[in-house]
Amino acid sequence: MLTPKLQMLQDALKRLIRRQAAGPLEKVLAKTHAADLAYLLPHFSTHERKLMFERSSDDERRAQILSEADSDVAAQVLEALPRDLAVELLHRMEPDDVSDLLEHLAQELADELLERMRAADRSQVEDLSRYDSATAGGIMSPRFFALHRDTSAKDAIEALHHADADVEMAFYVYVVNEAEQLLGVVSLRQLVTSKPESTLFDVMTSDLIRVTTDVDQEEVAKLASRYGLLAIPVINGSNRLVGIVTIDDVIDVLREEATEDILRMAGAGDDLADQKAVLTSALKRLPWLLATGVGGVLGAVLIAAYSATLVTVPALIYFLPVVLGLAGVIGVQGAAFITQSIAQGRMDLASLGKVFLRQVASGLLLGSLFGALMAAFAWVWLLGGQPEASITAAVVLGGAIAAAMTSAAALGVVMPFLLIKIRVDPALASGPFVAIGADLVGLATYLIVAGTYFNR
Amino acid sequence: MLTPKLQMLQDALKRLIRRQAAGPLEKVLAKTHAADLAYLLPHFSTHERKLMFERSSDDERRAQILSEADSDVAAQVLEALPRDLAVELLHRMEPDDVSDLLEHLAQELADELLERMRAADRSQVEDLSRYDSATAGGIMSPRFFALHRDTSAKDAIEALHHADADVEMAFYVYVVNEAEQLLGVVSLRQLVTSKPESTLFDVMTSDLIRVTTDVDQEEVAKLASRYGLLAIPVINGSNRLVGIVTIDDVIDVLREEATEDILRMAGAGDDLADQKAVLTSALKRLPWLLATGVGGVLGAVLIAAYSATLVTVPALIYFLPVVLGLAGVIGVQGAAFITQSIAQGRMDLASLGKVFLRQVASGLLLGSLFGALMAAFAWVWLLGGQPEASITAAVVLGGAIAAAMTSAAALGVVMPFLLIKIRVDPALASGPFVAIGADLVGLATYLIVAGTYFNR
Repeated sequence: MLTPKLQMLQDALKRLIRRQAAGPLEKVLAKTHAADLAYLLPHFSTHERKLMFERSSDDERRAQILSEADSDVAAQVLEALPRDLAVELLHRMEPDDVSDLLEHLAQELADELLERMRAADRSQVEDLSRYDSATAGGIMSPRFFALHRDTSAKDAIEALHHADADVEMAFYVYVVNEAEQLLGVVSLRQLVTSKPESTLFDVMTSDLIRVTTDVDQEEVAKLASRYGLLAIPVINGSNRLVGIVTIDDVIDVLREEATEDILRMAGAGDDLADQKAVLTSALKRLPWLLATGVGGVLGAVLIAAYSATLVTVPALIYFLPVVLGLAGVIGVQGAAFITQSIAQGRMDLASLGKVFLRQVASGLLLGSLFGALMAAFAWVWLLGGQPEASITAAVVLGGAIAAAMTSAAALGVVMPFLLIKIRVDPALASGPFVAIGADLVGLATYLIVAGTYFNR
Repeated sequence: MLTPKLQMLQDALKRLIRRQAAGPLEKVLAKTHAADLAYLLPHFSTHERKLMFERSSDDERRAQILSEADSDVAAQVLEALPRDLAVELLHRMEPDDVSDLLEHLAQELADELLERMRAADRSQVEDLSRYDSATAGGIMSPRFFALHRDTSAKDAIEALHHADADVEMAFYVYVVNEAEQLLGVVSLRQLVTSKPESTLFDVMTSDLIRVTTDVDQEEVAKLASRYGLLAIPVINGSNRLVGIVTIDDVIDVLREEATEDILRMAGAGDDLADQKAVLTSALKRLPWLLATGVGGVLGAVLIAAYSATLVTVPALIYFLPVVLGLAGVIGVQGAAFITQSIAQGRMDLASLGKVFLRQVASGLLLGSLFGALMAAFAWVWLLGGQPEASITAAVVLGGAIAAAMTSAAALGVVMPFLLIKIRVDPALASGPFVAIGADLVGLATYLIVAGTYFNR
């Protein structure tokens, strides 16, 4: 939900656009933070967005709004703009933002815009687009602040005065040699507080975290977060400094990955952007539905094998949703705990044994509780009409539910370990895979335990 | 999983401790980043941790490791240390870290340690502990860098030279008046690049994002991320600057919330820390199992109502896991898409109608596909022995599955809107609640459609 402040802003903008009140609209647009306008863009129609862009104060501002918007939304806006304006705005954006944005455009349009860009800017964008968008190379900015090792602190501060405002968040001065190889880093604070005549080489920290262009963006975010860095330098294979990943990119990565994890855990694809069309959205969901369908068919075969028993003891049929529901939930609960513990470095393969026993104990405890509850419920409910609803029968039913939950809990611990071991994404390992597995194991346990008794 | 580098480090440390090789152990400990040691702490036994602390170079280093560790792990370590050393380490930590850590100790021990701390440090910690730990007040640091409005740029730089190294990440100088009320902010870069004689009041930006102590930490993280800020000043009710939330705290919040969301979505509590004991872990899981149990019992009642039909057409029983599985998955998929779209500001209540139609269309498409697949499967599989397995019967079964999936898909869109409207956490709205609801709606639809035909 939008905050009240943003909701008011949105209402005001829509009202002014509807009334064609150009003057007041320009005023509101000018005094609003570009990030807020970018955040609201998805709530405006193509026509409204066009007007908002026309009435924005200047191209710098328009470019800023596009930079702050999610790339897919920015791409939609850009599509609707005159080509000349679009190219002009691209010139004013950071090359890494341009590269992301172009990826969301139709290939033809992206090529056309790139073709029309100034050679220097184009080549920066083209350099970046060579990297996989989920790697350090894909999220880095080529606009960093690096100086030669022999520069004095005083000259470095002087250089900062004249640095292009384009240089991304200059909190660190990177120190390089003649071959642009990364030697060390000096923080702005170190620079300000060191003797003016000392060289950067003297004051720099040489033991610094750096990544190569091919490192996964999630790993980069982890490093920045673990070591509390505001920027991480990115080098190529020969230690030449080629870019930096700044903290705001890291935050974007963390947010993006969080969304991706939740969507994956629900088996709903991994990106919100491309799920707008009915068919695309359906296709994204298909894999997990197919897997669930296959799981369901296996369940059907299991049940069919016990159909004789089930038809004579219908109470066993009634409790199928209970068994499937509880087994699924207890399995997924355990798997989520395991995958998150592993992700946060709190657990490793060596501790599997201990964790397994603890989780199975917890499953047995919960299983016994729910088995007892369901046995009591079955006994009270079915005591009337049905001859098999003796206390013993109810207890067997409860025992079967307890066994089903315990085995599902055990599976919920083991499966993520196995899946992560074979490099399946932890979000998948705690979501769809385990849900299907726990359902089947729970169902099988239930049928075997109850079937054995009632089939005598 | 640990990275190879960290795994090697862990193995080396364990080996050196086992061999009681004090000298080499000290060497490895000294050259390892405190953050790495903190990250590895959960993998060491109490005894091993004690040795690692004894062999660390000095108290500054020990305090650093504790600060970098998760608060619950740090609390475990502190418990095992001699009281004097524990107090000494607390003195060297940031007040906000101490406050977090004490929260994870037994009340009695926390009180004792606090009692033994120096009055000045104690009062800072006590001030912080008054705030809810999930608010700006709870995560802020009281050690910020603020100067009076009339200070010159030159004097400000001079003041930075002498600033306590304790001051958290001084990238901004906050500008205050005599009453310590927040007037504006000057970035370190602005400071370095402005005329030495200009006052802070002249160069400051007065239109700055600030939050009051009671603002939710998630909201603070969103602001920092949306506006690309390295720190957000925290004020009290009368605009007095009382602390700052720095970007590293923001990243911690984002990571913590991501874990919390996944655990909640799986119905497995909201914190990894307190799930170590079997009973606590079981209690955390109980609410969702109970809700699922109640859902299952409702399902049992539904099935019982159709038991006559089911017993005469066992194929309908066989497909119960298919119906429950597919309905649950399609419901949760839609709900995850909706909650994430809302969380990212891409969707609001106004667009419910449009989204609803699109999602139902997608559900109908997928439902028809799976209905057709299951009808074909039922027909081939059951053609042999069972008289009711005519093509018509198979088609009805498929139709019932299609209807069940479509209704579950519709519920998956509407439920999160309703739940978020009544302020239920979106993670709960896309997980347990919807899974139970979609199962029941799917099951009911299936029984009604199939029951109506077979019961003629």
